[in-house]
Amino acid sequence: MDVELSADFRQAGKVVSVAGFYDGEGKYKVRFMPQFEGEWTYETKSNIKKLNGKKGKLVCTAPAPGNHGLVSVKDTFYFAYSDGTPYHPFGTTCYAWVHQGDSLGDLTVKTLSKRYFNKIRMCIFPKSYRYNKNEPKYYPFEGKPLTDWDYTRFNPAFFRNIEKRIGQLDSLGIQADLIIFHPYDRWGFKNMDAATNDRYIRYVIARFAAYKNVWWSMANEYNLIKSKNMADWQHYLQLFADNDPYNHLRSIHNSGKVFTESPLISHLSIQSRNVEQANDWREKLKKPVIYDECKYEGNIERPWGSLTGRAMTDRIWVGVINGGYVGHGETLLTDDLTSSAVLWWSKGGTLKGESPARIKFLRKIIESAPAYLTPVKSTHRNAWDVNRLSYKDEYFLEYIPYEFQPVLYNLSLPEGKKYEVDVIDTWNMTTEKLPKLYSGRKNVIPLPGKAGMAIRMVLVK
Amino acid sequence: MDVELSADFRQAGKVVSVAGFYDGEGKYKVRFMPQFEGEWTYETKSNIKKLNGKKGKLVCTAPAPGNHGLVSVKDTFYFAYSDGTPYHPFGTTCYAWVHQGDSLGDLTVKTLSKRYFNKIRMCIFPKSYRYNKNEPKYYPFEGKPLTDWDYTRFNPAFFRNIEKRIGQLDSLGIQADLIIFHPYDRWGFKNMDAATNDRYIRYVIARFAAYKNVWWSMANEYNLIKSKNMADWQHYLQLFADNDPYNHLRSIHNSGKVFTESPLISHLSIQSRNVEQANDWREKLKKPVIYDECKYEGNIERPWGSLTGRAMTDRIWVGVINGGYVGHGETLLTDDLTSSAVLWWSKGGTLKGESPARIKFLRKIIESAPAYLTPVKSTHRNAWDVNRLSYKDEYFLEYIPYEFQPVLYNLSLPEGKKYEVDVIDTWNMTTEKLPKLYSGRKNVIPLPGKAGMAIRMVLVK
Repeated sequence: MDVELSADFRQAGKVVSVAGFYDGEGKYKVRFMPQFEGEWTYETKSNIKKLNGKKGKLVCTAPAPGNHGLVSVKDTFYFAYSDGTPYHPFGTTCYAWVHQGDSLGDLTVKTLSKRYFNKIRMCIFPKSYRYNKNEPKYYPFEGKPLTDWDYTRFNPAFFRNIEKRIGQLDSLGIQADLIIFHPYDRWGFKNMDAATNDRYIRYVIARFAAYKNVWWSMANEYNLIKSKNMADWQHYLQLFADNDPYNHLRSIHNSGKVFTESPLISHLSIQSRNVEQANDWREKLKKPVIYDECKYEGNIERPWGSLTGRAMTDRIWVGVINGGYVGHGETLLTDDLTSSAVLWWSKGGTLKGESPARIKFLRKIIESAPAYLTPVKSTHRNAWDVNRLSYKDEYFLEYIPYEFQPVLYNLSLPEGKKYEVDVIDTWNMTTEKLPKLYSGRKNVIPLPGKAGMAIRMVLVK
Repeated sequence: MDVELSADFRQAGKVVSVAGFYDGEGKYKVRFMPQFEGEWTYETKSNIKKLNGKKGKLVCTAPAPGNHGLVSVKDTFYFAYSDGTPYHPFGTTCYAWVHQGDSLGDLTVKTLSKRYFNKIRMCIFPKSYRYNKNEPKYYPFEGKPLTDWDYTRFNPAFFRNIEKRIGQLDSLGIQADLIIFHPYDRWGFKNMDAATNDRYIRYVIARFAAYKNVWWSMANEYNLIKSKNMADWQHYLQLFADNDPYNHLRSIHNSGKVFTESPLISHLSIQSRNVEQANDWREKLKKPVIYDECKYEGNIERPWGSLTGRAMTDRIWVGVINGGYVGHGETLLTDDLTSSAVLWWSKGGTLKGESPARIKFLRKIIESAPAYLTPVKSTHRNAWDVNRLSYKDEYFLEYIPYEFQPVLYNLSLPEGKKYEVDVIDTWNMTTEKLPKLYSGRKNVIPLPGKAGMAIRMVLVK
């Protein structure tokens, strides 16, 4: 606690100040993520003579293939990597996967390598909740576990374990949406004193911020952490804003009232089933809208964890078509119906549900569409309850929620231009191009009379 | 128009005054539905000497088996026949079926004889709308059809045809929810002058009120009939209240804002998909709540007519579990995809959908339950979005909307009493009794992990 350490990294008039941290065994570290190519010089600052005034230089080379930099907000409602590549979040949720030991953790990484998802919500602190009562492999603090934590000393092994996983996620192109505080705790970490909370946040920034794929989620279900008030949340946001040299994305996830009270959130991280309101939230907050939790595909004894695969898939399509992004989660009990069952949402492991393949199918559609798509509010009184996504007059995507099964569909297109029309079966993951080209406001196209259809219209140039 | 005719029917201090009507070919008629057994005397009144002062008597015998009398409101939120037998509406919609000629009309009656439904919404006037552009067999007025109606002379054949159908419905135990005005008109009947409207209503009452199974629905989608204002609707309700000797049920069906402005409506007739709000409407209006239109099972090019069978079935269960009643409709295109296709919702014919069998299954469950069931608002934050129906502590019915598929389910029961528990598959229409009895607040029962399950709990006495 007595040691102060930081370093200034300089390049052609730019100065980036980065905090260091103690990594155990007498080692102090400063981590830096250069965001510009070329030579950088650095110099350490410390109140300890041995650590002060260390100078050196490094050369930032061109990014390796596949390295697009970090993700930030683009054009008010969207995300892009530093190099301009669009990033469309298709996330999942594995709250405590990093706390389940090496073997299960490795299995989770293997599952994630199938690239259904490009974002994962995960807690830094261990989690204590139904289907997640086991002790974590590591604890964040030194001291006597479970009875007498020494909040003045972080446990480097705990954080190294998380770093290993963040690095693996990065190599898979997956953003790590790190949850700083959460209410599901039996160890005391949700009720730490204010000084410890701040120290913890500074330590997290010092260790993790140099990973390009981290996002900061102040809380899971902030409303349920009774020890913290709105001023606390504002303070944590400010801490990240002031101390993260890279300005990683910041959010707060709700239970009940959505957090809208600070300009320091980069995007909305909403818990709600009402994904059809994505465009309303966009318009209201002028920020990207992510429904990080709209219930999960599963079959447990709670509504939030018992969606059919079809309902989960439908929620995600509806949210996306309305201009939002919607996260996946899975709570499927299979052989083991006991409380120690390994559910993806909490512990990771393997995916057993029906929605991930469909989400990947949707992701490919969005990633192959022009960036970025705008939700257009339908003014027709017989509209299908959702918006249409559009890119100028070049591209339109519509979705019919899975409660409907039309065999005929009215298609409204600009006059005087011709469009190719694809009929997309979002459940069977097939795409059929209609033999005709279409134009103008009054078209009726045939559909197969199945639930969960989408229609894509592409301008023929 | 010059002839006034009515009759007073008397029995032991009771007097029922009934209007007569002209039935063509020089015949005047007075129809009377006695509601008490025994001898009744009558005497006609008229401004025409030949019709005035006719006296006579009749004997009202005991009702034939299956004749429970007319339906009226019972215990604020429910319905019962005159003899006290509970009536639970499970209705359907065939707006213009009486105008499709004899052969199709007879086919509709044959379909209705399968007794999926015990109520039908139907227009008196012919209908002009998509999938219903054909001319009716009869017109309500004399004169020169289509160009010059003589609004002073009703066409008895038009009304006799409807009476025949009302009688057939009655013999099947089906309530005829007669729609007086509607907006889908190309003949001028929605824009008649005020005197004609009143004369039409008095004629309808004189002809139809003696059928015990008629209900009066002032309008389909009252908000869309621009020629009539709120005062007009109040006036029509008042006309029925003042002139119908039997006080048949009265309602107004909306498009958009629900009609709540008059104490003269006996129940709510709602168009809305939000059937989960049934209990809120009950509490607000203190009347029975019927969702007469929550979209239809079908596959046409409109969301309101394109629900999957599963979605239609789910809507009906959700509405019922929340203390309401929900009507069915079917707009399924099969072989004929043209605008002259015969859709049940408009023309009748045969039923092709998946929901009618499931509705019949639900109806049997409700009819075999104690009358009447009360929706109990769940206070549990993890409730399944719907209420539980209950009868004292003797009977409970819960439903899990079809977006959910739990394998485990928390069951809360009164302490110190034992309950049989049935697991009901509302889609496959099976019921499985669990081998154990259950008691108390904390039970977890197994479910098959399928969508659309209901749970029935019956006290073991």
